[in-house]
Amino acid sequence: MSTICIGADVGGTSIKLGIFSLDGSMIKKWEIKTRREDNCKAVIGDIAASIREELEKAGYRLRDCVGIGMGVPGPVMPNGYVEVCVNLGWRDRYPARELSDILEGIPVRIGNDANIAALGETWQGGAKGFRDVVMVTLGTGVGGGIIIDNKIVEGRHGLAGEIGHIHIREGEKEFCNCGGRGCLEQVASATGIAREAKRLLTSRPSEESRMRKHGEHLSAKNVLDAAKAGDKLAGEVMDTVADFLGLALSYLTLTIDPDVFVIGGGVSKAGSFLSEKIEEAHAKYLAISKKHPKIVLATLGNDAGIYGGARLVL
Amino acid sequence: MSTICIGADVGGTSIKLGIFSLDGSMIKKWEIKTRREDNCKAVIGDIAASIREELEKAGYRLRDCVGIGMGVPGPVMPNGYVEVCVNLGWRDRYPARELSDILEGIPVRIGNDANIAALGETWQGGAKGFRDVVMVTLGTGVGGGIIIDNKIVEGRHGLAGEIGHIHIREGEKEFCNCGGRGCLEQVASATGIAREAKRLLTSRPSEESRMRKHGEHLSAKNVLDAAKAGDKLAGEVMDTVADFLGLALSYLTLTIDPDVFVIGGGVSKAGSFLSEKIEEAHAKYLAISKKHPKIVLATLGNDAGIYGGARLVL
Repeated sequence: MSTICIGADVGGTSIKLGIFSLDGSMIKKWEIKTRREDNCKAVIGDIAASIREELEKAGYRLRDCVGIGMGVPGPVMPNGYVEVCVNLGWRDRYPARELSDILEGIPVRIGNDANIAALGETWQGGAKGFRDVVMVTLGTGVGGGIIIDNKIVEGRHGLAGEIGHIHIREGEKEFCNCGGRGCLEQVASATGIAREAKRLLTSRPSEESRMRKHGEHLSAKNVLDAAKAGDKLAGEVMDTVADFLGLALSYLTLTIDPDVFVIGGGVSKAGSFLSEKIEEAHAKYLAISKKHPKIVLATLGNDAGIYGGARLVL
Repeated sequence: MSTICIGADVGGTSIKLGIFSLDGSMIKKWEIKTRREDNCKAVIGDIAASIREELEKAGYRLRDCVGIGMGVPGPVMPNGYVEVCVNLGWRDRYPARELSDILEGIPVRIGNDANIAALGETWQGGAKGFRDVVMVTLGTGVGGGIIIDNKIVEGRHGLAGEIGHIHIREGEKEFCNCGGRGCLEQVASATGIAREAKRLLTSRPSEESRMRKHGEHLSAKNVLDAAKAGDKLAGEVMDTVADFLGLALSYLTLTIDPDVFVIGGGVSKAGSFLSEKIEEAHAKYLAISKKHPKIVLATLGNDAGIYGGARLVL
């Protein structure tokens, strides 16, 4: 029986798991529910039990597995310490060590989920074959994962890749979750896009737009669909969003100049319509050079985290 | 006789050279003139001859030297290729290979001078003991050098660390050397500081300022001296400069979160007066976390390049 590795992506609603060959092919994947009682106390035990069960079903023994890599939604210290993980209610824990203890001492590594998704896309996704990669996740928030020389850059204070909180817009009056004002996340997340569109609709009440029919329930997807269908106001919203994203990515280019940017997360389902707009804005802010990183779309979707987890132990 | 290494910092006016012990003590340093005739054709030969001569004077043989590291003022490809080096008039050359060929095949490495200065400050200067360091050079222009895990990050297209060209100011009408408008360099370089001050003096003609006596010859040093002496308008200029610098550094923190930022270059002679203002602005744009990189002053001055060169071959 060949050797394998396992990736786990721990979220507030569900935990995704996958078994991979060492060369990066997925052998199987599955999902379990995140039991939220008592600050997700049972989660590590549930993961261990589920891994034992699925390994056995697939005909593997624990000793066939070189290790387990686990992504969690929060900052992780280099020694695996999790001071606080808000979404799970964890505090003051060493989750990797705990999982290893239950599973006969198997090597377990842990990291921040956005970083680990970036590692997954670098290993087998949109950035396959590159060594220096930035993944930008456009979802409820805006996250980032920085890979240099095939390794995750965490940063001394865990702030590396927190690109959603780059201060990008002067004059913003609402506060971001981080306490700042004018963060990239406030304009380029799904929430931000919808808000931006509502603001524009309010400020130009006499202009027609197919976005109006959604009223208060207008979502980022509605805005993107309308923009793709040629709606003028929706197009303006997406130009603004892409301009701020392109500007922010130009900062990263002038810092680490990666091989490639990979755009993932729910908003990235807009596809090349969005990535081309971002690419254009990015180039506009890089008058210094005609050669600069490409912007590509993520390809692993929700599986990026389990791929990255598996890669973490190789 | 103990083993040594050599650093060379090739500039458009002079070439600085130094002999170092492998643990980073400077044994001697000297300087030769950059012969500019025929696109600095003779420079590599001059460096070789000077190294032979000074090694002999100091009682070393070439074989005592583990290698030579050389910084040049322009982009260098990972294989040592220099497509063009404007300040020296070099085109299409492999300067490290040429130097090695003249010096009996001794290992020679080459890199961009700003990056190599950053390596020097990390090895023996203001950032000694740290692994992830960003050096910001405030001189005629604004340069940057990025060190991650004790290694220089060059970037795929040589743009890593080009932080002077981060687009930071909307509405700027003058062009930067790079062809863009609103670059950090346009406000935070020595040239930028003087220009900023002249603009303020012009826009507020009735306000007293000790900067006025310098007329058109007002320099960054004049502005800094006036600000330190309590001049109100000069203080405002430096607040603006520090605010833009702090904002730009917050972008880098949210990308790679280094251990420390080191501020060097002529403008950094303003000392803690400047670095404290930058630190304050930097913190202001990082509402997300109270823990973030410190900002310190460079300590090697013009020797950073020869230290970094020597470190490059270790």
